[in-house]
Amino acid sequence: MNTDSRFLKACRGEPVDRVPVWLMRQAGRYLPEYRKLREAHPFLELCKTPALAVEVTLQPLERFGMDAAILFSDILLLLETMGADLRFDEKLGPRLRCRGVREGGDHGLKVPDPERGLGFVLDAVRQLRKSLGQNVALIGFSGAPFTLATYLIEGGTSRSFLDTKTFLYRNPASFHRLMGKLADAVQAYLQAQIAAGVQAVQLFDTWAGILSPDDYREFVLPYTQRILSALPADRVPTIHFSLGTSTLLEEMETLGAGVLSLDWRIDLGRARQRLGPARPVQGNLDPLALFQPRDALRSTVRNVLGKGASMPGYVFNLGHGIHPKTPLESVETLVETVRSFPATPMQAGAP
Amino acid sequence: MNTDSRFLKACRGEPVDRVPVWLMRQAGRYLPEYRKLREAHPFLELCKTPALAVEVTLQPLERFGMDAAILFSDILLLLETMGADLRFDEKLGPRLRCRGVREGGDHGLKVPDPERGLGFVLDAVRQLRKSLGQNVALIGFSGAPFTLATYLIEGGTSRSFLDTKTFLYRNPASFHRLMGKLADAVQAYLQAQIAAGVQAVQLFDTWAGILSPDDYREFVLPYTQRILSALPADRVPTIHFSLGTSTLLEEMETLGAGVLSLDWRIDLGRARQRLGPARPVQGNLDPLALFQPRDALRSTVRNVLGKGASMPGYVFNLGHGIHPKTPLESVETLVETVRSFPATPMQAGAP
Repeated sequence: MNTDSRFLKACRGEPVDRVPVWLMRQAGRYLPEYRKLREAHPFLELCKTPALAVEVTLQPLERFGMDAAILFSDILLLLETMGADLRFDEKLGPRLRCRGVREGGDHGLKVPDPERGLGFVLDAVRQLRKSLGQNVALIGFSGAPFTLATYLIEGGTSRSFLDTKTFLYRNPASFHRLMGKLADAVQAYLQAQIAAGVQAVQLFDTWAGILSPDDYREFVLPYTQRILSALPADRVPTIHFSLGTSTLLEEMETLGAGVLSLDWRIDLGRARQRLGPARPVQGNLDPLALFQPRDALRSTVRNVLGKGASMPGYVFNLGHGIHPKTPLESVETLVETVRSFPATPMQAGAP
Repeated sequence: MNTDSRFLKACRGEPVDRVPVWLMRQAGRYLPEYRKLREAHPFLELCKTPALAVEVTLQPLERFGMDAAILFSDILLLLETMGADLRFDEKLGPRLRCRGVREGGDHGLKVPDPERGLGFVLDAVRQLRKSLGQNVALIGFSGAPFTLATYLIEGGTSRSFLDTKTFLYRNPASFHRLMGKLADAVQAYLQAQIAAGVQAVQLFDTWAGILSPDDYREFVLPYTQRILSALPADRVPTIHFSLGTSTLLEEMETLGAGVLSLDWRIDLGRARQRLGPARPVQGNLDPLALFQPRDALRSTVRNVLGKGASMPGYVFNLGHGIHPKTPLESVETLVETVRSFPATPMQAGAP
């Protein structure tokens, strides 16, 4: 008997009793209980103290009852362990310094042993697996090499990504070397999370959409493929997330990811038609749709559900992380609406 | 005998001797002669003094010999004439204030008579038509209603567009009224530019790509259609530009635009296949590809040319405006590469 959660079943395209739901950044600033904890602890302390990371991870589950928990952490912690200097500025967001990277080197960057450098993450995973019931899956994650590279090169977030592109255009060999090292680190990190007990992993390539299809194929695709092919995808579903890449569906299909997480810039029904019923998808509500009044939100969520659940293998999610100013009641409405949406015959496995 | 420039011919899908080229924001900060003029005159003075606007418009033509001139101006001047308070902050970029708009009203916004409020633009158009030879087309432009609305509501540029979406989700009727008023103003402005002598017009809907396809269809599409259908498209080609909308090609086809200007997130060859030979396109080099070394740039430009010129009706351009830090030599290389690219038999009108 298959006792997997409905989230894991949906990731594998298996029949489910209803559409599973979780939200990117579901543990975060829109939650009053999270903000309260943040008053007492800086962000990095929350990430680096397993008991606190566990508490934050569980907050949205206790309030809303999502079908999956995603480990509370940050993609940039891996870069810190690799040798970059990381701090979080309340106004500017994350600031990274890594000597030599902007000049085309990778000086000082090393592929860490996750159990040594990121043991606090793995401890949190082990504790979470004990706390979570069989019905709630635990998702691990990492930033993908390209997105991590943009933070290293830009020193933080960026609008134009001029430094990243200048680097990869002027020093392609050096950029490939950096990507190779990041891919090694990401692969080891995800493998360690799986060994510690996560039941699915999501790779966040948030900024991959800044590249042309040709540049994506040259500088990104091979590294993502390498990481995903090294993971035990038969046991642990893999999810690939990126923004603004819906024009690259053909490339996305070759990544080797089990599930494609799509943003809201594509019609989910059209995307499923193009990808076919063998490709599970996740998404794709605009996170700012949660600023709609209740009735409009309910109707928008049902619209997305209708398109997503038109084929088996569908996980409801946003197209990007939840906005910190999101009203709590909207998240309630969203979760209720997904829960009460009837499984389609196809999803439920009927003929 | 058809004496139109090759740019206008390409916009109509007619045979050309070679691919025409111009660059969005070709008159701008990457040019030393522009920076010199800016030392003596604030940005808005350049825009509002016809002799100076004419001089700036002609600068890239004199240096590189583009196939089309685009009027030097700014999309936000129309909003100023409608009643918004506009200033340019050297660091923050444009700052707009418009009382009441964020609360869901459009207080004080009026549809201006372009000859009164924007006479300096129309004077510049008339002077430019006298200066430009028959081979160089003059392109007029306006921001599209949605993109103008985002500036009014956000007060400048934005990353999340939270205020715009909150407005349109919570006050849809009021947002539609604002869009209607903006559409009236844009239409009158483009008609006045055509009467003054521009030979093609480009509508910039730079931020349309932040919306889901459903929201785009509800809040944007009807207004763009209304404007474009009111213009004499048989005489004056219309070009529609937006960013991050390549997943909306089906919607773009119904806009009523003669030419679709595409960004670099889509493979131009695939886009042309999907749109078919009857739809002229413009684009789509990543502006940051101009930071490549010379040989790589030449090869990237040829790659785009090969895909774009695979069917008749193709104008070479960037996928967005040229970056202020772009090296001059790169623009030279780009223009030379396009000029020396042989017209394909299809483009030249051979059987």
